[in-house]
Amino acid sequence: MSTVGNSANIFWHECPVGKQERQKLLNQKGCVVWITGLSGSGKSTLACSISRELHSRGNLSYVLDGDNLRHGLNKNLGFEAEDRAENIRRVGEVAKLFADAGLVCIASLISPYRKDRDACRAMLPESFIEVFMNMPLDLCEARDAKGLYKLARAGKIKGFTGLDDPYEPPLKCEIELSRRDGICPTPGAMAGKVVSYLEEKGFLETK
Amino acid sequence: MSTVGNSANIFWHECPVGKQERQKLLNQKGCVVWITGLSGSGKSTLACSISRELHSRGNLSYVLDGDNLRHGLNKNLGFEAEDRAENIRRVGEVAKLFADAGLVCIASLISPYRKDRDACRAMLPESFIEVFMNMPLDLCEARDAKGLYKLARAGKIKGFTGLDDPYEPPLKCEIELSRRDGICPTPGAMAGKVVSYLEEKGFLETK
Repeated sequence: MSTVGNSANIFWHECPVGKQERQKLLNQKGCVVWITGLSGSGKSTLACSISRELHSRGNLSYVLDGDNLRHGLNKNLGFEAEDRAENIRRVGEVAKLFADAGLVCIASLISPYRKDRDACRAMLPESFIEVFMNMPLDLCEARDAKGLYKLARAGKIKGFTGLDDPYEPPLKCEIELSRRDGICPTPGAMAGKVVSYLEEKGFLETK
Repeated sequence: MSTVGNSANIFWHECPVGKQERQKLLNQKGCVVWITGLSGSGKSTLACSISRELHSRGNLSYVLDGDNLRHGLNKNLGFEAEDRAENIRRVGEVAKLFADAGLVCIASLISPYRKDRDACRAMLPESFIEVFMNMPLDLCEARDAKGLYKLARAGKIKGFTGLDDPYEPPLKCEIELSRRDGICPTPGAMAGKVVSYLEEKGFLETK
């Protein structure tokens, strides 16, 4: 029995499949693409577009969508300041696991506070790519795909980011996406910019 | 602007990279291997051994270790009944995400209560493989690699599974691993049994 016990202990410490091995299998480097911006700025659309672009190249990615996670992992959280911070912390921790698994993890959350985003960045300082969807409030409100701005303006949602709760833009992010001459780039063009960045930084080829 | 808004909305609903596409890329099916058993029963060792075996076959897996997650995602949870349930719920939710990403997710947690394990199973009824490390308490306590049984016997840990808190064995699990004639199979042999099961059930080849 003691032999089994000992060999088990040694094996545990030696556990030989790590991030490096998974990255080699996938021929890419695990990282987190963190998309932040106002509701309606196009975060989810961009996340899907990046995912499609990566898939067409043979790269494995996974989208963590703030809204979707509130139906699962974060369903026991509300929208008070403390719960919002915990929401972002959990997504950051899960994104870190996905990056450790070797995937390009695309997190898409309003994540309005700099402090919360920076805490996630601190978990993965060398493989955290912050993408700021810098779209003006009037554009986001005009889109209002989910009808949330209308509800917030009618006073039916309190603490709505951009209206009665602040959005703190990144002071320094890896990629900023915005309109040029009043024209919004297509999702494909914006995704291309992100994927090019990943390629340049060596996340997509480890050969 | 409205065109951009519309195309963005359509794109969101059409988001074309789903579980099927990722599984095809990886040539495997996402699933959760949930290893349950007493402290010291060999769960972590088995998890690593399965991961190594899968990697050698070219399959992508990821281990969610209960102890490790308590340093990250679950670091704000204690060991009271409610926190234990929340601990398992979160691991179940994250395991579900990994399976959706196309990976073989290996979760290794004592997970002593049937109700909590069954709640995780209910999230993924067709791709949840429960593995019961059915090792006797005296063997686990004799190993005591972490020194926890000693602390519990000395009254320094309260509510320790198997001593003063119950372990509810699965009533029906996919795989049960135990000693034969008093001999404990090697981690490699036990991992082989799990991997063979995954192969038989079609999780490792989608061609």
